[in-house]
Amino acid sequence: MTSHELSTRLGTLLRADQISTADEVRAEHGTDKWHASALPDVVVFAESTEDVVAVMKFASENKIPVYTRAAGTGHTGGCVPVHGGILLSVMRMNRILEINPSDGVCVTQPGVITGELQNAVREHGWYYPPDPASLKECSIGGNIATNAGGPRCLKYGVTKQYVLGLTVVLASGEILKTGGRCHKNSTGFDLTSLIVGCEGMLGIVTEITVRLIPHPQTRAMLGASFPDFTAAAAAVQAILDSGTLPSALEITDGFTMAAARDYLGADKLPPGDAYLMIEIDGNVETVARELPALHDFLLEHQALRIDTAPDEPSCERIWQLRRDFSYSLKHTGLTKLNEDIVVPRSKLVDLVNFAQQLQADTGIPVACFGHAGDGNIHTNIMVDNYADPATKKVADAALDRLFTWVIENGGVISGEHGIGLAKKPWIRQALGEVSIQTHLAVKKALDPTNILNPGKFLD
Amino acid sequence: MTSHELSTRLGTLLRADQISTADEVRAEHGTDKWHASALPDVVVFAESTEDVVAVMKFASENKIPVYTRAAGTGHTGGCVPVHGGILLSVMRMNRILEINPSDGVCVTQPGVITGELQNAVREHGWYYPPDPASLKECSIGGNIATNAGGPRCLKYGVTKQYVLGLTVVLASGEILKTGGRCHKNSTGFDLTSLIVGCEGMLGIVTEITVRLIPHPQTRAMLGASFPDFTAAAAAVQAILDSGTLPSALEITDGFTMAAARDYLGADKLPPGDAYLMIEIDGNVETVARELPALHDFLLEHQALRIDTAPDEPSCERIWQLRRDFSYSLKHTGLTKLNEDIVVPRSKLVDLVNFAQQLQADTGIPVACFGHAGDGNIHTNIMVDNYADPATKKVADAALDRLFTWVIENGGVISGEHGIGLAKKPWIRQALGEVSIQTHLAVKKALDPTNILNPGKFLD
Repeated sequence: MTSHELSTRLGTLLRADQISTADEVRAEHGTDKWHASALPDVVVFAESTEDVVAVMKFASENKIPVYTRAAGTGHTGGCVPVHGGILLSVMRMNRILEINPSDGVCVTQPGVITGELQNAVREHGWYYPPDPASLKECSIGGNIATNAGGPRCLKYGVTKQYVLGLTVVLASGEILKTGGRCHKNSTGFDLTSLIVGCEGMLGIVTEITVRLIPHPQTRAMLGASFPDFTAAAAAVQAILDSGTLPSALEITDGFTMAAARDYLGADKLPPGDAYLMIEIDGNVETVARELPALHDFLLEHQALRIDTAPDEPSCERIWQLRRDFSYSLKHTGLTKLNEDIVVPRSKLVDLVNFAQQLQADTGIPVACFGHAGDGNIHTNIMVDNYADPATKKVADAALDRLFTWVIENGGVISGEHGIGLAKKPWIRQALGEVSIQTHLAVKKALDPTNILNPGKFLD
Repeated sequence: MTSHELSTRLGTLLRADQISTADEVRAEHGTDKWHASALPDVVVFAESTEDVVAVMKFASENKIPVYTRAAGTGHTGGCVPVHGGILLSVMRMNRILEINPSDGVCVTQPGVITGELQNAVREHGWYYPPDPASLKECSIGGNIATNAGGPRCLKYGVTKQYVLGLTVVLASGEILKTGGRCHKNSTGFDLTSLIVGCEGMLGIVTEITVRLIPHPQTRAMLGASFPDFTAAAAAVQAILDSGTLPSALEITDGFTMAAARDYLGADKLPPGDAYLMIEIDGNVETVARELPALHDFLLEHQALRIDTAPDEPSCERIWQLRRDFSYSLKHTGLTKLNEDIVVPRSKLVDLVNFAQQLQADTGIPVACFGHAGDGNIHTNIMVDNYADPATKKVADAALDRLFTWVIENGGVISGEHGIGLAKKPWIRQALGEVSIQTHLAVKKALDPTNILNPGKFLD
């Protein structure tokens, strides 16, 4: 079916202003934050579950690929419409439908920006903890597609652990309701968790009920530099061994600190070759008491210099430094291949040693920073001129070595971004043949003609 | 295939002492804590993943039903071998394989008793929080089959939220590995969560990796009586609204308190028609500071009398009272149909009012107590002479009214016990037709000849 035919046929189901074949609209909806792109034949703006039902009935009858897209801030090309067809945007479904502290839930449409949802429930005194770095621009629907995480997931868990119920439009156009608004549920298979993280390959989420928890009264932070990564990683384990579960435990390596000295000025960073950020939260007096105790604890564990952040503005300064680490890497002018790998926590130091070896062998700098408490370290392969085929070949070989090392060491190739196109080459190695066959059987059960996000990691 | 033939054929795959057709062994393995029972043709005691593979290859080639059973402490008849065939016990697979605080994981076989696993990791200073009431006799494998919960799941989450990876023998006899030992994972569909809570209908779990968290240094409790259930439920919401997330929030109604006065002696219970137990945990000084604050808070919220439990022995006394509530109901001599329904938290009072109405209409007492913080209230229909057909009819009609009310009020029919046989009559009403069809499609994808736990909620 041509772009024009598709548009005409869809025009019998939706209003004209919900359909576009304009080049710039198709181009804008053909990519995400990764570097792949492809043009859909048509872009459709769904405004309701019923719109999605109409599109899916039409698409399944005509075996047309459907790519669902929310805010398009993914890091893996997960929503890129590699086979053309229909690009279905849910960004007009952007209303929070209910905030209900009595039930401890928020009901929302998928196009709501995650940070706005957090702020809205916060105004009621409640908390939706998952906090991907992109929370000011990513959507809750996209978070569900990849099971997004963030620093606070150490204490509070990832997106999946907050999703209580979903309205899902299946490939057939039927409406599946999973879960509900209850906080516990052992009624049938956990189809909610099957949909969360399925990267749009099993159904299209049109309504979401998330669990809320009481908002901690306050938070405070420490930022500590260490002589090296090994010392910082040892401090991470010591904190956890002491019975303390911080709300965030972020680690940064020497390469990243060097880049930050370059970007921010050497005097803006403490001495040392590793940096640890620790956030705690809870009742006001509790936090006030625990902060100095943790300060002393870090001094006993090789910390060189410690910045204390007892209030909101000073916490924000430490989180700003965390963001500046990311900007510093961008400022190097190199292409940052940011891989959200996870290793068992005991392998943190091995990972950084491996990254240094990889750097020595390939000449490509490797920067590691991220969520130390759960082993989810963003490993950035910093490539000069990735567009150059020879360079790309070396960089891709380095990626292959990284992922192979991660899999061999009991790690996983994605902790929060998903597979998409970026990690498709490694998915069979990561999951193994029986798992792939099981994935394919489940995919076929829910999407027998493979129209939901085709061309991704199962094709 | 006769019992004898089955046993002979299995004898080529396993040792003789792993196979039994003895009547008493078959009878012992034909039931759980619910009242249904059925005789398997043969009982097999698996000792390894390889044993389970051998049994499943044989069973799938010969289309023989396989019922997996762990400790047999289920409340729904979930493991009852209603179609005969093979009863596969995993209780000889009872070793904890690894406790690894550095990675924050414990690797275990399914036949390990949950309480023993908790104690073992506790000795390392770490914590596996899920705490079903039966934790001294139930197994981790059974907990996974039903996605078991418990009081502390309010703060810490249910079984599912701790399972990182599984070794699963599929119906075909193939070995599926899901997840791993990483604390975050967005690599492919969440097959781990699909298996957890599947009640043995999608695969047989032979090895489990659970996440551990740092053990809180201490805990403390308050036990408070209230004039009525409405006041106690209002206090629950007020506690959560204040930004406090207790580790447990257990509520008890007037009927249960009356039964306890009868069983323990009237002077052992405080005045009032409802009782609330609140457990908090954390660092020693934090808990010491928060306990009196919470005490004052309860006084401001209509508490009549408050018992304070600042140390381990006094906490244990309050938990003993919780257990005594259960014994008190048993002591009435009535048959306790214990339903683990969940309602949205705002419906707690409505539920108890409905239960009182049900009692008035049917003459059958109804006792409510349980996990107030997450709306998971064990609703016990107390039947005199359930064996009598006329009485059974009235009681079953009362159950039907209860489940129908729960579903109509946004609740779910199981929060932690699963469906099994007990709630099979209500599963279609609970899930709806599209969900049932989706369940059937997933079931067929993983178990095409329906040999895993057949006769349960999808048949």
